Amino acid sequence: MSTIEMIEAAAERLKGHGRETPVLTSPFLDEIAGCRVLVKPECLQHTGSFKFRGAWSAISALSDEDRQRGVIAYSSGNHAQGVALAASKHGIASVIIMPSDAPQLKIDNTKALGGEVVLYDRATESREEIGEALATERGLTLIRPYDEPQVIAGQGTTGLEIAHQAATMGVTEADVLVCCGGGGLTSGIALALEKHAPGLRARPCEPEGFDDVKRSLATGQIQNNNAASGNICDAILTPQPGKITFPILHRLCGPGLSVTEEEALRAMAQAFLRLKIVLEPGGAVALASALFRNDDINGDAVIVVASGGNVDPEVFSRALEFLT
Amino acid sequence: MSTIEMIEAAAERLKGHGRETPVLTSPFLDEIAGCRVLVKPECLQHTGSFKFRGAWSAISALSDEDRQRGVIAYSSGNHAQGVALAASKHGIASVIIMPSDAPQLKIDNTKALGGEVVLYDRATESREEIGEALATERGLTLIRPYDEPQVIAGQGTTGLEIAHQAATMGVTEADVLVCCGGGGLTSGIALALEKHAPGLRARPCEPEGFDDVKRSLATGQIQNNNAASGNICDAILTPQPGKITFPILHRLCGPGLSVTEEEALRAMAQAFLRLKIVLEPGGAVALASALFRNDDINGDAVIVVASGGNVDPEVFSRALEFLT
Repeated sequence: MSTIEMIEAAAERLKGHGRETPVLTSPFLDEIAGCRVLVKPECLQHTGSFKFRGAWSAISALSDEDRQRGVIAYSSGNHAQGVALAASKHGIASVIIMPSDAPQLKIDNTKALGGEVVLYDRATESREEIGEALATERGLTLIRPYDEPQVIAGQGTTGLEIAHQAATMGVTEADVLVCCGGGGLTSGIALALEKHAPGLRARPCEPEGFDDVKRSLATGQIQNNNAASGNICDAILTPQPGKITFPILHRLCGPGLSVTEEEALRAMAQAFLRLKIVLEPGGAVALASALFRNDDINGDAVIVVASGGNVDPEVFSRALEFLT
Repeated sequence: MSTIEMIEAAAERLKGHGRETPVLTSPFLDEIAGCRVLVKPECLQHTGSFKFRGAWSAISALSDEDRQRGVIAYSSGNHAQGVALAASKHGIASVIIMPSDAPQLKIDNTKALGGEVVLYDRATESREEIGEALATERGLTLIRPYDEPQVIAGQGTTGLEIAHQAATMGVTEADVLVCCGGGGLTSGIALALEKHAPGLRARPCEPEGFDDVKRSLATGQIQNNNAASGNICDAILTPQPGKITFPILHRLCGPGLSVTEEEALRAMAQAFLRLKIVLEPGGAVALASALFRNDDINGDAVIVVASGGNVDPEVFSRALEFLT
């Protein structure tokens, strides 16, 4: 279970190591959305996504003995880079299990950040078996991407910053739109807001067709996605909400929102043009919801968590075509 | 004359109106440069460049009576947008004289930010004559882009933030590379560092072929550029250093640096890939100097001011091609 006390403790451990991201605004985005839009750009976090927060929180919470033996993670994306860098900065080993068909850039980045990359063949091998064998042999601790209390606590530090920054800007009642995969970031933020900004309400944002969290919230039961891939928002495609995250989301969040791939790309283009930040499609669904789902959002301000910016140049150039 | 007291006073007036930009880092950039690279992304400032600081400083320093009559500026670029927004936020009128062949997007942006755009024909009309007639008729105050003490003071607030942020990160001796046109930003930063971080030294960065400041510093006399245009770094092409800025630059700055257009584009690509920020070519020359002129930079850390991000999608896509 994750608690607000764990989030506050994670914030203490992150001090001087994580980056407090700013809040960005643009009158042009306000115009499109029809209300004030406050954007929290977690793409500016170390490794280009919020994932560094959770990875640092989890690794720094281990006992010295466990930590010294190292950590292991399964990921082809942002969590991999977050764990690799957080481990390096702690001076410990990290093993990242990645599919052999992962983009070479992501493999190279993970290695360059200090991760020991172990590749497996998706078709013939089980990453869990490989991981468990390595973990047992070397005594590594598994860092799960979202269903892990200390990871949720780390992501929740984003919510502490939002509570403080929004208050400074005079915003005390608003929806906080969060790009949502397994729900680690959304649930952590929801817990932080519950105590520190009770007038702010987290709402998960997803790609259409992969709106498992939205449907789970609507029905009160965990729902699955039909497909595991096949959407440009790859960073936030998860089969279903987590077992730990869902009860938190269900208790605290407002209704989910979903957007099309084109809307995600259009939001990336607006973030480029108006905020001068780089978003990946999965990191842009919350901004897309603010800009293009304004009928579903009440209030004269909305807060957007732009969760990551690890995007290939080709995909980014596609988004920019919406400006010409 | 601009003084440190004016910069400190400008910082007070900017409080709650300007944005304190963060400092970004990436181990990948450190690797290329061969030392720690601290990037101050002024592209994240209101209107996408540091120019908002100087515009706000100048407008807020006017007497109530002068301010109420409104302001005027000549610019087709970042200064125009900074003045328009700073004027709107003060609730006063701004007239921006722009060439009729300026990009439609920049004209539209300036209008949308509240500026009254007056177009002139570069071939047949004089913007000074048009401007002076309007200024006299309506009692408008001219806000010069750099050779204006209160504008320099506003840009200098960037230096106050750098002094504080660098000290927090343990960097007290380093070169501070600044994208330099007329020298308003560079001279303001140099003045701020002189008092608040004497171990940090400002160095102007320019495009090759338009290195008037570098040559002026080397000779001790104001030098001109041969051409007025013809370089992708349009935001920082000025005929010569300012009459007010040059004596400050000469007294306080280290030697200038210059980079090629391709190096500026490559730095934009690295800023996209590693920092998740959008830079325009003229806003990337300092980062390019850090990455590609490391033989000319001493010390184990370098600070880079990434001054703006107002770039057309086509030019940005060109920069991204260096990644593929």
